[in-house]
Amino acid sequence: MGSDSDWPVMKAAAEAVAEFGVPFEADVVSAHRMPTEMIEYGRRAAGRGVEVIIAGAGGAAHLPGMLASVTPLPVIGVPVPLKYLDGLDSLLSIVQMPAGVPVATVAVGGARNAGLLAVRILAATDATLRARMVEFQERLKEQAHAKGERLRAEAAALKPAD
Amino acid sequence: MGSDSDWPVMKAAAEAVAEFGVPFEADVVSAHRMPTEMIEYGRRAAGRGVEVIIAGAGGAAHLPGMLASVTPLPVIGVPVPLKYLDGLDSLLSIVQMPAGVPVATVAVGGARNAGLLAVRILAATDATLRARMVEFQERLKEQAHAKGERLRAEAAALKPAD
Amino acid sequence: MGSDSDWPVMKAAAEAVAEFGVPFEADVVSAHRMPTEMIEYGRRAAGRGVEVIIAGAGGAAHLPGMLASVTPLPVIGVPVPLKYLDGLDSLLSIVQMPAGVPVATVAVGGARNAGLLAVRILAATDATLRARMVEFQERLKEQAHAKGERLRAEAAALKPAD
Amino acid sequence: MGSDSDWPVMKAAAEAVAEFGVPFEADVVSAHRMPTEMIEYGRRAAGRGVEVIIAGAGGAAHLPGMLASVTPLPVIGVPVPLKYLDGLDSLLSIVQMPAGVPVATVAVGGARNAGLLAVRILAATDATLRARMVEFQERLKEQAHAKGERLRAEAAALKPAD
Amino acid sequence: MGSDSDWPVMKAAAEAVAEFGVPFEADVVSAHRMPTEMIEYGRRAAGRGVEVIIAGAGGAAHLPGMLASVTPLPVIGVPVPLKYLDGLDSLLSIVQMPAGVPVATVAVGGARNAGLLAVRILAATDATLRARMVEFQERLKEQAHAKGERLRAEAAALKPAD
Amino acid sequence: MGSDSDWPVMKAAAEAVAEFGVPFEADVVSAHRMPTEMIEYGRRAAGRGVEVIIAGAGGAAHLPGMLASVTPLPVIGVPVPLKYLDGLDSLLSIVQMPAGVPVATVAVGGARNAGLLAVRILAATDATLRARMVEFQERLKEQAHAKGERLRAEAAALKPAD
Amino acid sequence: MGSDSDWPVMKAAAEAVAEFGVPFEADVVSAHRMPTEMIEYGRRAAGRGVEVIIAGAGGAAHLPGMLASVTPLPVIGVPVPLKYLDGLDSLLSIVQMPAGVPVATVAVGGARNAGLLAVRILAATDATLRARMVEFQERLKEQAHAKGERLRAEAAALKPAD
Amino acid sequence: MGSDSDWPVMKAAAEAVAEFGVPFEADVVSAHRMPTEMIEYGRRAAGRGVEVIIAGAGGAAHLPGMLASVTPLPVIGVPVPLKYLDGLDSLLSIVQMPAGVPVATVAVGGARNAGLLAVRILAATDATLRARMVEFQERLKEQAHAKGERLRAEAAALKPAD
Repeated sequence: MGSDSDWPVMKAAAEAVAEFGVPFEADVVSAHRMPTEMIEYGRRAAGRGVEVIIAGAGGAAHLPGMLASVTPLPVIGVPVPLKYLDGLDSLLSIVQMPAGVPVATVAVGGARNAGLLAVRILAATDATLRARMVEFQERLKEQAHAKGERLRAEAAALKPAD
Repeated sequence: MGSDSDWPVMKAAAEAVAEFGVPFEADVVSAHRMPTEMIEYGRRAAGRGVEVIIAGAGGAAHLPGMLASVTPLPVIGVPVPLKYLDGLDSLLSIVQMPAGVPVATVAVGGARNAGLLAVRILAATDATLRARMVEFQERLKEQAHAKGERLRAEAAALKPAD
Repeated sequence: MGSDSDWPVMKAAAEAVAEFGVPFEADVVSAHRMPTEMIEYGRRAAGRGVEVIIAGAGGAAHLPGMLASVTPLPVIGVPVPLKYLDGLDSLLSIVQMPAGVPVATVAVGGARNAGLLAVRILAATDATLRARMVEFQERLKEQAHAKGERLRAEAAALKPAD
Repeated sequence: MGSDSDWPVMKAAAEAVAEFGVPFEADVVSAHRMPTEMIEYGRRAAGRGVEVIIAGAGGAAHLPGMLASVTPLPVIGVPVPLKYLDGLDSLLSIVQMPAGVPVATVAVGGARNAGLLAVRILAATDATLRARMVEFQERLKEQAHAKGERLRAEAAALKPAD
Repeated sequence: MGSDSDWPVMKAAAEAVAEFGVPFEADVVSAHRMPTEMIEYGRRAAGRGVEVIIAGAGGAAHLPGMLASVTPLPVIGVPVPLKYLDGLDSLLSIVQMPAGVPVATVAVGGARNAGLLAVRILAATDATLRARMVEFQERLKEQAHAKGERLRAEAAALKPAD
Repeated sequence: MGSDSDWPVMKAAAEAVAEFGVPFEADVVSAHRMPTEMIEYGRRAAGRGVEVIIAGAGGAAHLPGMLASVTPLPVIGVPVPLKYLDGLDSLLSIVQMPAGVPVATVAVGGARNAGLLAVRILAATDATLRARMVEFQERLKEQAHAKGERLRAEAAALKPAD
Repeated sequence: MGSDSDWPVMKAAAEAVAEFGVPFEADVVSAHRMPTEMIEYGRRAAGRGVEVIIAGAGGAAHLPGMLASVTPLPVIGVPVPLKYLDGLDSLLSIVQMPAGVPVATVAVGGARNAGLLAVRILAATDATLRARMVEFQERLKEQAHAKGERLRAEAAALKPAD
Repeated sequence: MGSDSDWPVMKAAAEAVAEFGVPFEADVVSAHRMPTEMIEYGRRAAGRGVEVIIAGAGGAAHLPGMLASVTPLPVIGVPVPLKYLDGLDSLLSIVQMPAGVPVATVAVGGARNAGLLAVRILAATDATLRARMVEFQERLKEQAHAKGERLRAEAAALKPAD
């Protein structure tokens, strides 16, 4: 991420990846405050065995796109919302990349989904990981079912006498 | 894609994937006109050997997110711009997915980048494909250099007599 | 609704319907977390005697449109605002449906109006219910009159000495 | 509709309704140019046997909401795009109704869906009409299938030699 | 105004008018909850000696435009911001009136300026009132000067040692 | 207006005023290219007998607000749309004036309504002019009626055989 | 700045300039409340030895553009966010200047960057100041490095057992 | 600029600079296609005697901000509008820079103003150049006067017989 102030948002990406037992590293690599190191980080990532990069940034968010320009790896961009404009600037700065250099963009503040997308990308060629993703999706469904059950009970109190 | 009217935009995704020698299939799978088939398509994709899905749709664009909800595969969403609102509706309908079900979103009309992102995803665990991506990025650079050369010549004509 | 977190907003729809003595059910049917069940829910609704569906969802809000694609019933969509973007994403994701599959969309967070719209739809062919709606509109008018009276009194204190 | 300049957009609503054999009338009833007649039109509609009102308007689009305020019938609003702002003003002016007076809003320029929504509303309590809607949805699916077939053929030409 | 919930915003209009000694009345006249009375109110205003109407409303804000359609008086519209969308919907619903029926729109929440605009309108043909407006503008300038003086003192503390 | 390139839009204001027999002058007074003359123009307007000022400008549209700051007259602002952003910048630059200095803003490109608003302002204290405005509104209604008649005929051709 | 209410935002510009030892003055010069003095201020600035002007304003923010129209100096504009619209109005009112009169615009609320931009402008022809800017950029990098170190430690706690 | 496709827009910056007799160079330096060269270009600019950098880019426009991060020189950013979104993405991607690294942003497509801003920056410490800027501003005024004269003649034809 571009600054440690993005960590409260970006932490959810790390947690999602960790839930699937996928090793990761987290670091501050600022496009604007340490551009040379950022370029170096991106350029070396593939060689170090990194397979997917998740980059979160806010406002004129250049980190995901710049990393994508120096690596052949898939780069996932997380628009971090700033104090003003509700992350619309962050979203457009990340997603509207020119032809040739894609960034896989998720929702404003959607760091958890960035982590899950990274897992899906790795799972594309890893049967074990894919099975875990299928289980995870099954659990999502069960949780939604449980929520529905509780809600039906609560809503029953509102029903008209018919 | 959700309709063959998306093909003029989405064709660029197919072309990008084809440039890298990656096999693909293109189809109309409408979330709103054939929902059961769409769900079936998504559910079976992984089992048929599909590794990445690219889904383009416009307006209230539900196809990418719905496919992502029934497959553990990475799904790339392309916001196709409609006649009004310049694709802002398509973009938000695709990218703002709830936690649990990510869609890797690219720029409005950015089908070529969707294809390139699919290649990067496959290349994450395929050294040959990654090498081709590195070569591709090298060619992008050379083309930009050539454009710079032509431009410098053209701009010289504007220079003030100093 | 897609999640029980939508209930604080969506409850107002249930309350409005209940005020008119119209029977209803409330449930969590997530487009993204339980897509097959959601499709089933929509497909069976008409056969079970449901006459109108109200669906609330936020962000990339796919529930109303997906239900509309599998039922011939009128579907009312409520854009639930998320933490960022003030519900603009929810609104566009629900209202911008492609030709063929309409969703009757109400205001951002406008669940009470969704309930009232459901009553109007049922009242289109039910004289008793329509009479209740006319009475309801009469009461709205009387309340506005009463507000005006109180306000005139309050504003009198501001008037200039003339 | 508020002006005959809306007819090129609104005609699609009339055509959709006509396809289902539902009788209708089309008229210019301007909220701003003939407000008293507009109020009268709305007030008398239910008594004349009208069951659903479709109102299209652009810019500061007040017609749908004003009609909804004087009738207990369901009112469907169609945001007609003007020369500037791509219909965003029309959409917000129609959909953001205050609690108490709902308007069933469809997409910008979505007149065809307004017609289809009117049919669904009538079909909520009309088995014959509902059966026609189910057939219509079946035909939508078949058309989408046919489009998919043509597209697969076209896309085959792009496939990489593998 | 359309509801007494607009009073905390609209009060500033009444206060501004009162500061200039201009007589006024304040009332709740809802376009959507009491449309016939609203039309009557607008239609009779000029005959009762009203010279300018200030109308505030939020969301799908129809009150200013509807009043303007039934009176030849100048109507000033105040976009009242609702909980979501920051008043953008209110602004567009008021300002984007079709040719033929103008509304003099002020800023989101700009009720004080609505009052001052009413005074300017009356002052266009009233020399005494215009003189008061000139004095008012003089006082604005003096207040700004005083603010500048205080600020220069405060800023001096920040100055670098040079 | 700020530039003669605004004339194709602003001409409609002059025409509207002329229709009512109200004398007017049209001029280029640029806030940014001739600021001192602009200030002078505004400052002298009331003394020369001007009663209302209509100012059109595009983009960072400062002319209406600057004139309003140097005159006690009512100033009407017309947001002129530029090549990009559809006049949203012009609208916000004109309407969002700070408390103390109001601008009566009309729709994007709404110069005709600016002229009509000027007439209404003058008519607030001029019975003859007000009578003409009432007649004008009557003609608007008759034109809308005539449009309705033509439309009903055209729509009859679409009606289903029932 | 246009009002002392902008000072909490604008103070950061003064502090940035002071950090570099550059002399400055801060004042309230309101475009709308004291237009003549504002014009005078701008017109005299260059003659008094001022080299760069930083102007902050909110809403219909006219101060930066008006100053730019009466001085040949570079003018930096800071969009100050108001209560509604998150500064989007302020940004567009400042940045969308017509050809001929540029304003160097920074981010919404970006006063610190306005100060740093002023330093860069002065440093363009001042070797000592430029050296300080290079040092400042070096410190930014070191701070980002330090943040990265702390973050890596914190993130280590989240890592999966592998 | 990032691509030669930006040249039709950016050429106006070169022309403006050339009008003032200021030497310049134009080049394609793509942030995304040749990141290392871009970093090198920015890092060396000051040492080569460059005093101001103008960078134009569209969409997720990273070039201006990235150059600003590797040079102490003032960097002017020109948001180049792409096919969709009217340059709003380009504007936000350029202007919303984080504290520490400013970009002097001009209007969407405002390349001519970028050139004029560069001249103002150089003129801050160059009396001859500043005199030329004052003359330029004088000519702008004269042109506006001439436009006013032509317009007054044209408008006279519209005046009412009074």
